[in-house]
Amino acid sequence: MALYIYKFGGTSVGTVERIQAVAEKVKAARDRGDQIVVVVSAMSGETNRLLDLATQIQEQPDSRELDVLLSTGEQVTIALLCMALHHLGCPACSYTGGQVRILTDDAHTKARIRSIDAQSMREDLAQGKVVVVAGFQGVNEKGWITTLGRGGSDTTAVALAAALQADECQIYTDVDGVYTTDPRIEPRARRLKQITFEEMLEMASLGSKVLQIRAVEFAGKYNVPLRVLSSFTEGEGTLINYEESKMEQALISGIAFNRDEAKLTITGVPDLPGVASKILGPIAEANIEVDMIIQNIAGDDTTDFTFTVHRNDLQRALSILRTVREQLGAGKVTGDDDIVKISIVGVGMRSHAGIASAMFKTLADEGINIRMISTSEIKISVVVDEKYLELAVRALHAAFHLDQELPA
Amino acid sequence: MALYIYKFGGTSVGTVERIQAVAEKVKAARDRGDQIVVVVSAMSGETNRLLDLATQIQEQPDSRELDVLLSTGEQVTIALLCMALHHLGCPACSYTGGQVRILTDDAHTKARIRSIDAQSMREDLAQGKVVVVAGFQGVNEKGWITTLGRGGSDTTAVALAAALQADECQIYTDVDGVYTTDPRIEPRARRLKQITFEEMLEMASLGSKVLQIRAVEFAGKYNVPLRVLSSFTEGEGTLINYEESKMEQALISGIAFNRDEAKLTITGVPDLPGVASKILGPIAEANIEVDMIIQNIAGDDTTDFTFTVHRNDLQRALSILRTVREQLGAGKVTGDDDIVKISIVGVGMRSHAGIASAMFKTLADEGINIRMISTSEIKISVVVDEKYLELAVRALHAAFHLDQELPA
Repeated sequence: MALYIYKFGGTSVGTVERIQAVAEKVKAARDRGDQIVVVVSAMSGETNRLLDLATQIQEQPDSRELDVLLSTGEQVTIALLCMALHHLGCPACSYTGGQVRILTDDAHTKARIRSIDAQSMREDLAQGKVVVVAGFQGVNEKGWITTLGRGGSDTTAVALAAALQADECQIYTDVDGVYTTDPRIEPRARRLKQITFEEMLEMASLGSKVLQIRAVEFAGKYNVPLRVLSSFTEGEGTLINYEESKMEQALISGIAFNRDEAKLTITGVPDLPGVASKILGPIAEANIEVDMIIQNIAGDDTTDFTFTVHRNDLQRALSILRTVREQLGAGKVTGDDDIVKISIVGVGMRSHAGIASAMFKTLADEGINIRMISTSEIKISVVVDEKYLELAVRALHAAFHLDQELPA
Repeated sequence: MALYIYKFGGTSVGTVERIQAVAEKVKAARDRGDQIVVVVSAMSGETNRLLDLATQIQEQPDSRELDVLLSTGEQVTIALLCMALHHLGCPACSYTGGQVRILTDDAHTKARIRSIDAQSMREDLAQGKVVVVAGFQGVNEKGWITTLGRGGSDTTAVALAAALQADECQIYTDVDGVYTTDPRIEPRARRLKQITFEEMLEMASLGSKVLQIRAVEFAGKYNVPLRVLSSFTEGEGTLINYEESKMEQALISGIAFNRDEAKLTITGVPDLPGVASKILGPIAEANIEVDMIIQNIAGDDTTDFTFTVHRNDLQRALSILRTVREQLGAGKVTGDDDIVKISIVGVGMRSHAGIASAMFKTLADEGINIRMISTSEIKISVVVDEKYLELAVRALHAAFHLDQELPA
């Protein structure tokens, strides 16, 4: 007998029929003898309906009351799913976040979980019941309702898995696993059977939208094996854990890309100590997040400084940089949002030299000019012109043999 | 400074605009220096939308889960109303039934309130905040969500008024008070400035739909002055309390009627001890509620037995009665649903003889035949043919001078 946490997102519970399908899947698992805790999101569309009501009343809705409002979405789903389970003859009991005492801090709309009281869930499971918990929500010490922010239901599922020491936390979604890259760009992209937390974090933060970063971090921290599967088709999905797969000794696991960035350059900056903070300080003060940063010596006591920000922040960042240029007596300020960041990710590159040069050679062979480079222990990112996205991804996918199942 | 409980039903909070109008009204009261606790229902239509989802899944939805589902309706309203108050610059804080610890028994979908913890509400009021509480809901000792059944939000309002020792509990609705009779039947019907709990109970139980009986009983038990007012127009409404109005020394306060009953008669029943229970026992066992009961001696050692039930139960009651007739060797069984019960209600009749005969004479003068009579200390009910409803109500309204304001 194993204990599983199942998490179903809004699309998977978007209609009465889909809720009934989820109930069938859960009942089948219980009939096999497993203990099941289900975490659900609001039915798709419901959160937007509630947000729309709120913003009709207050442009910036009060965050405490917004949490009271939005948390009803998941509460509706837990009740309906329990009814569907009862209809199939499967005993089940629903709980709001507050009822299983998912205690959080006071940060309404983006609260962090502090503790969970697993007692009543354990009793229900021991009695053979399926436990259904509302995702995305908790309560603070005053008993006020809080919500966990974007991807909060994934976080709830992982936190419950940690609290209950579950054997696995299964995230059911509308894709059937984590792929070597986006199949819409490279049709030969292959589902990974297994990937490490670190790799998944890099994939997620680089633009792969399967799982929220926070849930992956949480799962890694508490060593909760995480599996991504499809709600709609059968399959084993992708397992995310700490073990490097014995079977798949690949050098790299996947290729991620991010089209949401823009690049800014300021040239001819006097090369003096503290110049980087004079440039980036005002950007940070304007709450603009900076991703990649590169500084080159131009050779004549001046330096060129390049960094990337989110595309939505490009215009604001440009106008800040123009002010900075005058203060520093620097040269030109330019911005470019026709770029894409492409990254290869894999724990295998830790122990293998030459991955970076193989990547650069592949791109050079295709005539793709690299604008920026940045590396970490398990990833290498390059910025290239956006028009090369498909060509670059496909060339790298082939060069690192990602389309081939590795021998067992 | 006075403390008021305001209760707004589903129609009064049915749209964003109406919620904003409620917020204006509440803020105005607070600006006058009063302390305000607001109880709200679900937005009109919302409860039916949720019920529809539930019955698509389970014909008889599980009652525990139905309470989890339906309680979201009021939770949405409290959040939106608080946002509207904040938008007007009025400090406010929302609470679900469970959060102010409206502790109930375990009877899901028809729970009874046991206690309320008024502490956090008192603190908020002392800080100048408006407190907004979800009506209709509470929690049992396990912390499971319960609902109070039909008219539950009125009950919540009265219970909060009792717990907080409020000066008055004001029920805002779509009528502007309690009338001497239904204005659709008698256009000269007049709004009452004041009525006693006992009179209101008789009016309510006899078919006047303004307030739920349970809330009136509750208010009477805890001596909470109750006022019925319109959400949409200004006015002082009708005050319901224990005092007989000094100004309005009317003999009767109002005329109620009920078109939902049907009359059954069994004739030629052997006049033996225990015969009434032999007739009504099987009716009660079938869970059919009986209202008026009359037994006449026919003169020849047999008796005629007549009683009324809800119209929906007439056919079932008739078939039970036919079986009883055979067992008793009685005469004929007849049923009639073309009847109406008309009642005059007033604490004044306690101290005045002759009210009954005045009523019967008025009806006789109009040629209206009385089929049944039943009396209590503060009401006299008659059953007449339904076709006489309007004629009888108008004649009685005039005979007892209900259209005239009494001199102060």
